Amino acid sequence: MALDYSHDPSRDDKNLIVHTEKPFNAEPNPKDLISNFITPEKYFFCRSHGNIPNLDEASHKITIEGINITTPKRFTIQELKTRFEKKSIVMAMQCAGNRRDGLHKVKHTEGVIWGPGAVANGIYSGCRLKDVLESIGITEQMGHTATLHVAFQSVEKCEEDECYGSSIPLSKAVDEFGDVLLAYEMNGAPLTRDHGYPIRIVVPGYIGARSVKFLKSIRIQDKESSAYYQQHDYKILPENVGSIDDAENYWSITPAIGEYNVQSFVCDPPSGLVDVPILANAQPVKVQGYALSGGGRSIQRVDVSGDDGNTWVHAELQSQPIAERTSAYTWSWTLWTAHVHVKAGVRLVSRAVDSAGNIQQEFPVWNFRGVLNGAWRTVKPTSVIEEQ
Amino acid sequence: MALDYSHDPSRDDKNLIVHTEKPFNAEPNPKDLISNFITPEKYFFCRSHGNIPNLDEASHKITIEGINITTPKRFTIQELKTRFEKKSIVMAMQCAGNRRDGLHKVKHTEGVIWGPGAVANGIYSGCRLKDVLESIGITEQMGHTATLHVAFQSVEKCEEDECYGSSIPLSKAVDEFGDVLLAYEMNGAPLTRDHGYPIRIVVPGYIGARSVKFLKSIRIQDKESSAYYQQHDYKILPENVGSIDDAENYWSITPAIGEYNVQSFVCDPPSGLVDVPILANAQPVKVQGYALSGGGRSIQRVDVSGDDGNTWVHAELQSQPIAERTSAYTWSWTLWTAHVHVKAGVRLVSRAVDSAGNIQQEFPVWNFRGVLNGAWRTVKPTSVIEEQ
Repeated sequence: MALDYSHDPSRDDKNLIVHTEKPFNAEPNPKDLISNFITPEKYFFCRSHGNIPNLDEASHKITIEGINITTPKRFTIQELKTRFEKKSIVMAMQCAGNRRDGLHKVKHTEGVIWGPGAVANGIYSGCRLKDVLESIGITEQMGHTATLHVAFQSVEKCEEDECYGSSIPLSKAVDEFGDVLLAYEMNGAPLTRDHGYPIRIVVPGYIGARSVKFLKSIRIQDKESSAYYQQHDYKILPENVGSIDDAENYWSITPAIGEYNVQSFVCDPPSGLVDVPILANAQPVKVQGYALSGGGRSIQRVDVSGDDGNTWVHAELQSQPIAERTSAYTWSWTLWTAHVHVKAGVRLVSRAVDSAGNIQQEFPVWNFRGVLNGAWRTVKPTSVIEEQ
Repeated sequence: MALDYSHDPSRDDKNLIVHTEKPFNAEPNPKDLISNFITPEKYFFCRSHGNIPNLDEASHKITIEGINITTPKRFTIQELKTRFEKKSIVMAMQCAGNRRDGLHKVKHTEGVIWGPGAVANGIYSGCRLKDVLESIGITEQMGHTATLHVAFQSVEKCEEDECYGSSIPLSKAVDEFGDVLLAYEMNGAPLTRDHGYPIRIVVPGYIGARSVKFLKSIRIQDKESSAYYQQHDYKILPENVGSIDDAENYWSITPAIGEYNVQSFVCDPPSGLVDVPILANAQPVKVQGYALSGGGRSIQRVDVSGDDGNTWVHAELQSQPIAERTSAYTWSWTLWTAHVHVKAGVRLVSRAVDSAGNIQQEFPVWNFRGVLNGAWRTVKPTSVIEEQ
């Protein structure tokens, strides 16, 4: 049965490039994306797998059940708000398919052909999943059993499955420093419908696919979620897998993605090229972009090149000040600015180094689902048609 | 005053390539290194910064002091063994300088010119630092203050400083899943003198430099260790820093390394080349090596190429079985085997992908101290003289 999108919210106040209307998938233009350290909702990418449910916060309940829980527990949003401490974190939300367009240029990929805007930096507030689980007897110690997972399901009806489902290891959920939230606010206001109203999971340091919106249920179980979005999507298939048929032999033996990789992008100039001739000895051009890494790793350096990677300058970094952090790890993105000598029509690229010394490679290693593209920007050097 | 190395232990039972005798720095040959999943001590690299202290377990004490500790606490080894639960973990110990030789070929680097053998996989046993800290009132909650660190000092006199010193964030030390140990055993036997007898710190997922041997003191403080090995070494200096003088301007603004990056290496054939002509349609050659990543990330795939990176096959992985793991994260290395068609004199390379999608790049990004070289193997394609 086709999904009914007629009750989706209005998006008149958003300023996004729309990839698909039904379901609604849209991203900002690159310059808007980096115009704020905390991304306003109008520039916040939307990733949907179905129509947007129209839920009532007052009556909505979430259920928690599974291993070590004898009878399912139910919580209203009001209970979550009043019984548990509120925590806020600044966190980059990044779709695993961010910059899929770069891999799609190499060879056909399956999925929404995102440019560099399927990432944003939000302030999420809510209660810690850890605190809620502990209140019903799920302890930190249970996280040592590496085979236990926490599965989430949404109310949302989806194109590919009955509802949206995904999971994370229990260890991440109960880690004192994991900061997994049952979030009811973004940027200081109640979640909007497009971003998961009335309640969503946010999993910092992980791909956005694990931050389930319109949350309906949580289950402690001895395997990953069996949902389509855990088992048949969001995996880095090896290069030899080039079709949906090939993929069938690889889904079950390929790990699901959790943390994401090191990433950066030149957002201004948005084309990644300067298309007017620059005189010799001209002033350097101001170049700006973003950088981030998964798993709580910070960005230690961003190098920027105006001559296709032959020479590099260091960007000035705008990171979240450590004094303002409410977490032991870095969940926020970093914005950066560099002043670079450029030539007309020559590729402008950035290369981030994260705190573990991971560094972006020049050449993408293609994968069929086009996920976790962390290579340098690919741009046709003889034109101003850019990656996106 | 020159250090006295005359009381260093005998190394007659080791089978290592010696880089320097005083201090003793040595690594196994690549084929020996991967001949066991758990590395026997005779093939375990030794990294020393001074002479080896000759300590008495019965009288040795460690001191813990600093923030939130009113009077310094002292523990004998016997107390650590009896008062706290014993935990064992399988953990890759990797020097940040592993494979420095690859960067040194690009341009001069400072340090011991390690080949690919400054890594090993051991079973470490001891008590959790977290448990010991909690027994004196240092809680997990204190780890949320991102500015607190745990500094370690050794008894060892060193070439560059009064003693060996280093630090880690307090959050890592008190994390339920961090598995930082006060280790007194390696591979089921008491630590040997070369490996830190009678007690050392082991910090899984971090570079070996943080796993301080011959431990004397632990201090909770509001800044990193001020020791040479935290402040003037083990940092990824930017490419433009090419001398000790240049480095002086960068040490204080460059982060100290904690977690390491994704890594793999072809250890057999050790040259990275097959130097006899292979007939067309010949059987593929068996190629073996290791792979690992920092921060608890597992290896999800190793690709191997017999034609200098044009085509790739997937290696079969030997990872620690999840049922045998005592930790939520992956601290062990992975060994791998592939069968690859090769040509005489053409580079054999491996490329690992970790669980966060980080992937080894072809070309190294040089740094003056030659740390965290995660690029593909560099080998002169016209000779059999290999990286090491």
